[in-house]
Amino acid sequence: MISVRQYNEAVARAAAMLQNAGVVIAPEERARLEVADFGLGELEKTGLEIITYVNTQRCCAKEIIMFPHQTCPEHWHPTISGVPGKEETFRCRWGTVYLYIPGETTANAACRPPHGSEAYYRVAHEVVLKPGDQYTLAPDTPHWFQAGSEGAVVSEFSTRSTDDQDVFRDPRIARAPEVAAEAAGASD
Amino acid sequence: MISVRQYNEAVARAAAMLQNAGVVIAPEERARLEVADFGLGELEKTGLEIITYVNTQRCCAKEIIMFPHQTCPEHWHPTISGVPGKEETFRCRWGTVYLYIPGETTANAACRPPHGSEAYYRVAHEVVLKPGDQYTLAPDTPHWFQAGSEGAVVSEFSTRSTDDQDVFRDPRIARAPEVAAEAAGASD
Repeated sequence: MISVRQYNEAVARAAAMLQNAGVVIAPEERARLEVADFGLGELEKTGLEIITYVNTQRCCAKEIIMFPHQTCPEHWHPTISGVPGKEETFRCRWGTVYLYIPGETTANAACRPPHGSEAYYRVAHEVVLKPGDQYTLAPDTPHWFQAGSEGAVVSEFSTRSTDDQDVFRDPRIARAPEVAAEAAGASD
Repeated sequence: MISVRQYNEAVARAAAMLQNAGVVIAPEERARLEVADFGLGELEKTGLEIITYVNTQRCCAKEIIMFPHQTCPEHWHPTISGVPGKEETFRCRWGTVYLYIPGETTANAACRPPHGSEAYYRVAHEVVLKPGDQYTLAPDTPHWFQAGSEGAVVSEFSTRSTDDQDVFRDPRIARAPEVAAEAAGASD
């Protein structure tokens, strides 16, 4: 859970990064910007800031904003009862993002899993995405990603997003973001 | 059909507009940028410049670049044999785009259909998209759109693109772009 103050600070920081990257968002999009700490309480290390532009039954588009060295933990989008899991393309718009997927372990990889969570990171084949680079992930593919030292802005183009079906390697993780009630936030 | 010279000029102009809008593309994307004049031979009035980032069986993302007052002619994405037609979201990134859809005719609309093609434009309800604005079109919805005086850069998020299935109101239109062979282009 994050406090209201943490939420507001993360939103202001993400909005400033988008502006710096030349990405324009509407006021109502800023007002519903998602700040996900995955329930681990270490937003700077493990977390994402997300604006979902559209998410219909058939397709979805988001902008993901990552603070420097922020990590999205290892997870996959499962095929359930024959319904194919989410397919997604990450396109780097600004900064650098390091994507880790199944395959040969990359020697001298740029990133390490967040300290204390190493047990929940297994895939170690590195794909480096800089502005104009993209990578498409098939359903059921374990992956995690971490921003470089400047942070990153990444567009995600995908089939329907069903975050509650995502499977995380780390059993401590809760995908749905929780923001403390105002009173709790005030005591932060 | 457009000449090689027209093609190269349109690509250079579209690439410059993307750069101005802060959108980074890869060299291989620039090399396969699509310049569509819809077979009408009036690219400045009726045409689109398109980079398809990804187009799988399930979803698609493109960047559309429009020169000032350039028009994408009226068309729709049909449902065929029970398979739903393409659903698409247009998100303006830079400039202004005027989208026309079914509904009450907008008084004092900003755009007119290209001169000489008025008979092939019927829907006249105007939606104005400026940076950060977007609109989602259901399958089978007739629509056309025109850029404002600066031109526009528009992201398209959609289900699979099957351009050959698009239905255009204007029977003269050929959707697949044709670029003249080099020799023909040299004579332009």
